[in-house]
Amino acid sequence: MPKINACRLLSDLRRFAQFGSYRTGVHRPTYSKEDMDSRRWLAQQYEAVGLQAHIDGVGNVFGTPRSEWRSLLIGSHAESQNRAGWLDGALGVIYGLEIARTFAETPDCASLPITPVAWADEEAHYAPMLGSRSFVGDIEEAEIDRAVNVDHGLSLREALQGAGLAGVPRRLLESDRYVGYLEAHIEQGDTLEALSKRIGVVTSIVGIWQYSIIFHGIQNHAGTTRMAIRRDAGVAAASLAMAIAERFPEVVGPRTVWTTGRVTLEPGAPSIIPGKAEMLFQFRDAQMPVLKRLDVTLRELVEETAINTGCRAEIERTEMGEPWHMDPTFQEAIENAVARHAPGASVRMPSGASHDAQVVARKLRAAMVFVPSIGGVSHHWTENTNDADLVLGCQVLADTAEAILRAERG
Amino acid sequence: MPKINACRLLSDLRRFAQFGSYRTGVHRPTYSKEDMDSRRWLAQQYEAVGLQAHIDGVGNVFGTPRSEWRSLLIGSHAESQNRAGWLDGALGVIYGLEIARTFAETPDCASLPITPVAWADEEAHYAPMLGSRSFVGDIEEAEIDRAVNVDHGLSLREALQGAGLAGVPRRLLESDRYVGYLEAHIEQGDTLEALSKRIGVVTSIVGIWQYSIIFHGIQNHAGTTRMAIRRDAGVAAASLAMAIAERFPEVVGPRTVWTTGRVTLEPGAPSIIPGKAEMLFQFRDAQMPVLKRLDVTLRELVEETAINTGCRAEIERTEMGEPWHMDPTFQEAIENAVARHAPGASVRMPSGASHDAQVVARKLRAAMVFVPSIGGVSHHWTENTNDADLVLGCQVLADTAEAILRAERG
Repeated sequence: MPKINACRLLSDLRRFAQFGSYRTGVHRPTYSKEDMDSRRWLAQQYEAVGLQAHIDGVGNVFGTPRSEWRSLLIGSHAESQNRAGWLDGALGVIYGLEIARTFAETPDCASLPITPVAWADEEAHYAPMLGSRSFVGDIEEAEIDRAVNVDHGLSLREALQGAGLAGVPRRLLESDRYVGYLEAHIEQGDTLEALSKRIGVVTSIVGIWQYSIIFHGIQNHAGTTRMAIRRDAGVAAASLAMAIAERFPEVVGPRTVWTTGRVTLEPGAPSIIPGKAEMLFQFRDAQMPVLKRLDVTLRELVEETAINTGCRAEIERTEMGEPWHMDPTFQEAIENAVARHAPGASVRMPSGASHDAQVVARKLRAAMVFVPSIGGVSHHWTENTNDADLVLGCQVLADTAEAILRAERG
Repeated sequence: MPKINACRLLSDLRRFAQFGSYRTGVHRPTYSKEDMDSRRWLAQQYEAVGLQAHIDGVGNVFGTPRSEWRSLLIGSHAESQNRAGWLDGALGVIYGLEIARTFAETPDCASLPITPVAWADEEAHYAPMLGSRSFVGDIEEAEIDRAVNVDHGLSLREALQGAGLAGVPRRLLESDRYVGYLEAHIEQGDTLEALSKRIGVVTSIVGIWQYSIIFHGIQNHAGTTRMAIRRDAGVAAASLAMAIAERFPEVVGPRTVWTTGRVTLEPGAPSIIPGKAEMLFQFRDAQMPVLKRLDVTLRELVEETAINTGCRAEIERTEMGEPWHMDPTFQEAIENAVARHAPGASVRMPSGASHDAQVVARKLRAAMVFVPSIGGVSHHWTENTNDADLVLGCQVLADTAEAILRAERG
């Protein structure tokens, strides 16, 4: 049985958090100096385990085993959100490294090949899930040509040039070289904490449906236009938000979430009745029928709101992500490992957030393990997880990897 | 009796609209080349009537009569909002010029002194009502030092320098030189049109009370945070907007208006639950007791919303304008003039918008005349008024001026 080195794992997680450290978290945007330093450090560690390290044309770091057998990909993304937590994707990246190391030094596991991987730009500083999408063949050169940094506008081409990656080929997935993909991540919510569980066995990754909803009213003077004749686009937007809050609970699933992340009133002046209001709205669920039902309800509510407020409405669906189901055999292997190390400590749950696993799952069998987020905090520098949970998560993933690779050998 | 020259009036209004013409409207921001050209043109016209023309240190243009008697100030502001209507303040400015001219050429009015005036920056490109406030002594040099253009950030000092006004003294009101102040303006609403009236006799100018309302919720991941534990500041803002829409009608006066002109959700990203929401909210009424009642109701609703949504609320009153009443004798003189030229065509009404008249009214007796806005359109280049109404408004104001000045002589 592989026995991970808890001390080395925690020490590497902390070492990795020094790349771009920010308060108790990290600031390590994709292709920043800190990000590239962290990737080169990873490549050195992979080499030290006897793997062939390679940083490809979008910054994905692979540690390829010298083996004739199909290997198991284990990893996550190395960069962070701006001024965010020290674990997030780094957790899964360091788990991959630790498991590769543990297998290499455990005699009866040494022939079970692990490919640790660190994807680039899952966090969408330039393009969401850039690294994993590139790997599965879902990125055209034209998308790379167009992409710019969301914060400072530098083009992705310039960023790749600056990172020394211009002209380096992107590694494409050859499906028959891999048994599957495992990813660990912090939960980013409070479900595990609320249930007093330590491991989340991810059943599916939600589909995100995103909308731009625009109300067109009549822009006019806020002092001289009587209330009775106003067509205030801002009032229409507020009214829709309240209608959603009232009606969605009747049609949602038990874990559906919905959010209005941005509202823009135009012209946005204190003394002008807004003539236009735009809302960015999204909902997420792991079940396609629920997503479709919500789409219908949303369109009904937008229409009703338009009629009630005298505003004209436009609704455009800008994203329509399919929910992805994790491999059932892999999920079972995770539960078996939990039963061994912390009986009763796991719960099956969908992932409300997007992850590289949903991209890789289109081509390979895949599964995910969650560890608890203290207070449910995520994408903030105060993000954290107990050391004992960090260690348990890695041991569970190591056992899972062994089970999957042994089953593969038959 | 003064008989205005309708043809000359309309021709001058159209000539004035050539300074910064934009489609069928004008774009004549304060201290732009077009604005200063229009002010110099005005000064020339004042001189041509035999008045002493003077452009003071903030760009106010005065046409001072050579008379020992107290004169009547008549005017409005010369600049426009960006890409806005051709009338707005220009209407009152050209009325002042036409009335001064008519009096000068009418033998029995020639000794009744008119001071036409064109104020600067009522439209707040740099500072609201800058010109009229400067005139009544309500502008400190420090405010001029601080003010910057809302669109391009040029400092007011630089703008004055560029306009050739640096070092020119600002003219201050000597109260005993004036009998009072008359201002004409387009209505900027549809009340006159809806009532089929042609002249609005302004009874009062509303007080504007303005608020910044902030809700603090908990910023978190929009995918992993269950609905039940969210404290969404954006939902709190929408909920307050709806509560206001429901409860305000129970406590408002017949002409109260209220508006949420801007909403800002932070961080404003599609996948992040807003942790902070700021609303710019205002209401207007001509009665102080109504304004006070609305203030109390608003604070109650903000508190209720905070409790219902689990968000913390802050409310700050950023503006608390007092309503100003127009001089009753002047209002009567306006109605007498309407009775002579268009019996039954006037209605008494409060002004929902701010005007220089409310500033001057703090020091001098003042009154305002409104002419209809076609379709209630204002601050848009399609703004317009029928020629017959433009002419009637000027004639009514001329008659009013005569009555006031004759009453003054006793």
